[in-house]
Amino acid sequence: MNAAITEILPAEAVSAPVLAADLARRHVADIVVSLNEYEAAFVAAVLLELPRALAADVLDQPELSRMAAILKAMPLDRAVGLIEEMSADRAADLFRYDLSEPERHRFVAKLDAATKAELVCLLAYPEHSAGAIMTTEFVSVPDDWTVARTLEHVRTVERSRETVYAIYVVDPEIGTLRQAVSLRRLIAAEPGAPVGSAAARREPVSVSPLTDREEVARLIAKYNLLAVPVVDEKQCVLGIVTVDDVIDAMIAETTEDVHKLGGMEALGLPYREIGFFSMIHKRAGWLSVLLLGEMLTASVLQHYEGALEKAIVLTLFIPLIMSSGGNSGSQATSLIIRALALRELAPGDWWRVALRELPTGVTLGAILGAIGFVRVVLWQKLGFYDYGEHWLLVAATVGAALLGIVTFGSLTGSMLPFVMTRLGFDPASASAPFVATLVDVSGLAIYFSIASLILSGTLL
Amino acid sequence: MNAAITEILPAEAVSAPVLAADLARRHVADIVVSLNEYEAAFVAAVLLELPRALAADVLDQPELSRMAAILKAMPLDRAVGLIEEMSADRAADLFRYDLSEPERHRFVAKLDAATKAELVCLLAYPEHSAGAIMTTEFVSVPDDWTVARTLEHVRTVERSRETVYAIYVVDPEIGTLRQAVSLRRLIAAEPGAPVGSAAARREPVSVSPLTDREEVARLIAKYNLLAVPVVDEKQCVLGIVTVDDVIDAMIAETTEDVHKLGGMEALGLPYREIGFFSMIHKRAGWLSVLLLGEMLTASVLQHYEGALEKAIVLTLFIPLIMSSGGNSGSQATSLIIRALALRELAPGDWWRVALRELPTGVTLGAILGAIGFVRVVLWQKLGFYDYGEHWLLVAATVGAALLGIVTFGSLTGSMLPFVMTRLGFDPASASAPFVATLVDVSGLAIYFSIASLILSGTLL
Repeated sequence: MNAAITEILPAEAVSAPVLAADLARRHVADIVVSLNEYEAAFVAAVLLELPRALAADVLDQPELSRMAAILKAMPLDRAVGLIEEMSADRAADLFRYDLSEPERHRFVAKLDAATKAELVCLLAYPEHSAGAIMTTEFVSVPDDWTVARTLEHVRTVERSRETVYAIYVVDPEIGTLRQAVSLRRLIAAEPGAPVGSAAARREPVSVSPLTDREEVARLIAKYNLLAVPVVDEKQCVLGIVTVDDVIDAMIAETTEDVHKLGGMEALGLPYREIGFFSMIHKRAGWLSVLLLGEMLTASVLQHYEGALEKAIVLTLFIPLIMSSGGNSGSQATSLIIRALALRELAPGDWWRVALRELPTGVTLGAILGAIGFVRVVLWQKLGFYDYGEHWLLVAATVGAALLGIVTFGSLTGSMLPFVMTRLGFDPASASAPFVATLVDVSGLAIYFSIASLILSGTLL
Repeated sequence: MNAAITEILPAEAVSAPVLAADLARRHVADIVVSLNEYEAAFVAAVLLELPRALAADVLDQPELSRMAAILKAMPLDRAVGLIEEMSADRAADLFRYDLSEPERHRFVAKLDAATKAELVCLLAYPEHSAGAIMTTEFVSVPDDWTVARTLEHVRTVERSRETVYAIYVVDPEIGTLRQAVSLRRLIAAEPGAPVGSAAARREPVSVSPLTDREEVARLIAKYNLLAVPVVDEKQCVLGIVTVDDVIDAMIAETTEDVHKLGGMEALGLPYREIGFFSMIHKRAGWLSVLLLGEMLTASVLQHYEGALEKAIVLTLFIPLIMSSGGNSGSQATSLIIRALALRELAPGDWWRVALRELPTGVTLGAILGAIGFVRVVLWQKLGFYDYGEHWLLVAATVGAALLGIVTFGSLTGSMLPFVMTRLGFDPASASAPFVATLVDVSGLAIYFSIASLILSGTLL
């Protein structure tokens, strides 16, 4: 009942202590959903009423919006206390993305030495790398410990670790990673046996701090892991990336990819939170570039102006033919982008894809060409429109142009993600609008070349 | 060394027992990668050489291709033995997707009663529902057990459960779900205390067997769970969906969405595995529909043929103006599709979005309109092309048309996913090509209306 009440009460009607008392009984994810509805200053007041560990847990949720504004609305020492309590990877996000210069300095000056040192380490890793999303709160034990001693250790540190389901067995002298033991195997193992006896005999899967988060996600999904250790060149464990960080990263990557596929910069913020001018900025850039590219179509048409004047009937089919090229290109691009992301295809497979897309494109083009041909013939025969005495040649031109352009579109669309990868861009930048623009310009040239071939001596 | 050798040896050069012995030492995910390179009959021979539990584990991996062909290549009783050993959700997939009628019958006839019963239950749930992807191998204990007794139980059943990290505490009489306890809290808890004392006080998160897998993924991501229980109307636990099933489901959903966004049916199979004719089938459908839609542009142009004949200069800008409308529409569509998928927007928020996209579209349109205007003026002034005595009016027409069409495109593109949702379709079906086609037809009408407004009395 109470939960329902707070959800519908406006900020003015509920005091921070009352809301805090009600929220304290709910799941942290639900607390975040509630708090996102209130102003930052009020959220700050509520957080200060919550038990400190829970408040830090709320701040740890990536779904909480306006984290920086909330912390800025608190007395400095309380905010700093919460930052010290937060998980290190989230605190690093705060400093990396949310705080701008004067505040960053104000907070850093007050942080304790341990938190500061940890932040410096995490912030040194590039954005979206395993190092940047890892947590340093994991369990590792020397390999001369027994199963019982390890379990006892897990019991003591359970509260302070992000996960205890994967335990890393390290060399007692030099600290290098030897084995990974799952908690489930550990509790099923003989208490007196060495901890390593519960480990799989295989070498543990690990990543470098520079590994991209997409690759980390791929490994976790492939090996069904709950966490993957991040090790340095000497194989010492620096931290771990847990499956829930990876799920968050996967969701963020998918959002980025969908935005890019739509022909814009990734927003980086929820739709309802992004400001008007940031939104314009993210969208106008690509739209303008595409417009400039598309201006080439005007130049191509200028070049064929003579043909257009003689055979105005050709104009009627320009949009239809152009868009079919764009559509077949955007199909092929999405297919290949996804296959590359899933590693079903490697960058070196471009020639396999070309060999496959060529017959596919020809077949699709033949189908569309036939439809286009029939359309012209039908309209002529049914008397919807008179394409002139050479109507059969016009129909043949439309059909042949569709065949050519769909083939060209499928090939171009499928090769573009490979070209992007080769140039060091994200293949998802080969968006549908980008492919369509590319194909439009060359599509017009194909259309008019075919027209002058078929219609020369009659219409042209 | 051995691992590397088997990877490069062709099937003829390696015998099944040798390969099996080598593979047995590797991670199951890597075994799958190796086996996918060989023919089904050979894979069957290798699996029969592996320990039965490991062979079943290999079959459990969704990444293994041609599962049905492999099982069909085995003696029937061996195949049936493996199916009985496999996890129930994967076996259900086999019967649902991979086997066709005669074989399905042959296998079912030989299955033991328990497996048969379990399969019937799982297969009764609709595709992509929690019921269809759940596993029935989970740990549940009555709520009068102690922590110690529960831990002892976990130790015994560990080998036979998909996960033991979430333990479900049920009513000892009627079997309804009371609480969910995590293994980590359990091992940190007082051994003599009742098992429920280690549970969070909140009600456990659960789903119905009919909940869509996307919603299950959203809950697991939101609450950072390792598994979510599936309960019937009486709150009895039917099974659980684990985080690794959810990751697989998320990857599959993203693939579907990217394919749909590219304007085609989801392939449902990896690019390199799908047959030529299935590929054509999945791609030709939408291409043909879009072509038929796009044919309306020919009709619109026919309608304005008089204007075209008088002012052929208008033709030059048709592709440029049409594609700008399509591009702005595809941006807006991708944004909204993703925001709907992430629940940042609810279906009822369409008016908020419309209120937001209208000024955004006008601003974007003004930017593109200005670029278009400048382009015409520049070409005229620099002598690249002569747009005639009314060139300034032509420039104004292009600019105003871009303003109108980009605004229209942004609005249409952002509303289409809402319309799709309302009609009961996946919003991702509002693909970039679909939006572009919609906007193309109306865009031409906007262009010519603006032209006749501005140019009437001069060019027209």
